[in-house]
Amino acid sequence: MNRRIRVGIAGYGNLGKGVEQAIRQNPDMELVAVFTRRDPEGLAKETGLKVERLADAKEYIDRIDVMILCGGSATDLPEQTPQLAKLFNTVDSFDTHAKIPEFYDKVNAAALEGGKVSVISTGWDPGLFSMNRLLMQSVLAEGHDYTFWGKGVSQGHSDAIRRVPGVKAGVQYTVPVEEVIERIRSGETPELATREKHRRNCYVVAEAGADQAAIRETIVNMPDYFADYDTTVTFITEEELAGEHSGMPHGGFVIRSGVTGNGNRQIAEFGLKLDSNPEFTASVLIAYTRAAARLSMEGAAGAKTVFDIPLGLLSPKSPEELRRELL
Amino acid sequence: MNRRIRVGIAGYGNLGKGVEQAIRQNPDMELVAVFTRRDPEGLAKETGLKVERLADAKEYIDRIDVMILCGGSATDLPEQTPQLAKLFNTVDSFDTHAKIPEFYDKVNAAALEGGKVSVISTGWDPGLFSMNRLLMQSVLAEGHDYTFWGKGVSQGHSDAIRRVPGVKAGVQYTVPVEEVIERIRSGETPELATREKHRRNCYVVAEAGADQAAIRETIVNMPDYFADYDTTVTFITEEELAGEHSGMPHGGFVIRSGVTGNGNRQIAEFGLKLDSNPEFTASVLIAYTRAAARLSMEGAAGAKTVFDIPLGLLSPKSPEELRRELL
Repeated sequence: MNRRIRVGIAGYGNLGKGVEQAIRQNPDMELVAVFTRRDPEGLAKETGLKVERLADAKEYIDRIDVMILCGGSATDLPEQTPQLAKLFNTVDSFDTHAKIPEFYDKVNAAALEGGKVSVISTGWDPGLFSMNRLLMQSVLAEGHDYTFWGKGVSQGHSDAIRRVPGVKAGVQYTVPVEEVIERIRSGETPELATREKHRRNCYVVAEAGADQAAIRETIVNMPDYFADYDTTVTFITEEELAGEHSGMPHGGFVIRSGVTGNGNRQIAEFGLKLDSNPEFTASVLIAYTRAAARLSMEGAAGAKTVFDIPLGLLSPKSPEELRRELL
Repeated sequence: MNRRIRVGIAGYGNLGKGVEQAIRQNPDMELVAVFTRRDPEGLAKETGLKVERLADAKEYIDRIDVMILCGGSATDLPEQTPQLAKLFNTVDSFDTHAKIPEFYDKVNAAALEGGKVSVISTGWDPGLFSMNRLLMQSVLAEGHDYTFWGKGVSQGHSDAIRRVPGVKAGVQYTVPVEEVIERIRSGETPELATREKHRRNCYVVAEAGADQAAIRETIVNMPDYFADYDTTVTFITEEELAGEHSGMPHGGFVIRSGVTGNGNRQIAEFGLKLDSNPEFTASVLIAYTRAAARLSMEGAAGAKTVFDIPLGLLSPKSPEELRRELL
């Protein structure tokens, strides 16, 4: 398009803030307004941005090309994406892997009804990692693949720690087992138990007088979250938590180890090392916002995933520039 | 499609052999015939395959869904792709980066004339590396990116060695400078001279009585090929060459180091470690063969690059399976 892509942000947590910052790095985009369920005036005063009630979003139908949905996958997006996909082209980072097929169907129906494009489940996993899993499996038909996450903060596991009696605050890092990654990189294709792939390191601030041994036991034996992993629990002060654990780093690797011909080993690997998980996810959303705007201009409609969208649509460069400079 | 994709191979060197082997790893494909400029009967006897004269390819118009062009980029493909793209859907690995725009235009005109799809310049660079350059630049708008090749055999540089007087045989490895890669991985974004990114290691068999010092001088000072690099020349015997240097390993890395928000460092990396360069390139060609067949079924025509093709078309799995299993 010849004018800037007009963007709305629905939800202004860490991800929404990241999107706002990423828009400033992409001169072909402009932020029209932030939509929130909080008090719009308070947030406007705090941020200096144009802020509206989420319930009033429909008044912006003609002023926004793509609405970026920055809510959570547990309760926000399952409700918001189908609603907003009838009104706007949307992009979201719905990341509950097991529920993606159901989510896709609902969003697809809504987007088709509205004649809009809705890019779902982008970010880095689902997102860039998914793309690499697909690409590597398609190229190396015979092989094993592995996804490792971390070192990074897991929000779900940090929340689980904070629900333990006697815990005042805490953070959990998912840490890939480096020795295993090295074995895979050198050509082995081991079958790995959960415990062999990742460790979980917890940094916990206990309430005054709390029983630290009991807290530790509760954490390391917590089913689903920690029981299947080697988990360490380190007690720290509130100052240490604020000073050393306030970032949101993350990352990980997708590796496929395949075989071609008469047994030649071929290894492909994609990795991310992120200082800020929400800012990186936001940057991926922005690239897919560009694609959503273009697909809509071409007359497309319905739900799309990262598997459906040609890579060229992500770049501000023209197809001619891309062939000349990047191919 | 509900039947197997019928594939032809034009050119039966290392790449063509790799394609033949890769077809056997992909049950949705079948090899119809190999096309050659050599004596078809001799090659048929040697390989047990159906072999035809390249000049007779047009007789197969109704029997082949995709012709995979396995000739070289210097002289074969500039001639063959435009000719065959009028008759068949094609896939090639044209890799002369500087000439891609011109090649694209010619092939596009031919493919449009024939109503066929022609996927050009796929493989791993151009190909998977190009895709990662585009993807990483689109996501991380502010940053530096780097492409490193190796450790691997460079055919062009090996040929250059073999043209030096007194050289009987030889092989050249391109080797990325590991220390520099580590600096980039740890967040630095250095400006790098050619010499700082790659080394060139040559293994040379000299003619009996040849002046080894003179050979070394000629190689390390050869403009374009070696003069801008730190080059080592090691003299070996023919037995050592055959025993230790007959493989065709290659690989490399694409790394983008970007910044988001208030200075958070975000690093993305894609890497390949290949025992067999031609077999891996062949495996990429096969994945794009599937995409070419599908695009043609959908009514598409013209030249396409890896930037134009949704990733989902590369996989034998259905969109539903991909969303459920890989997203």
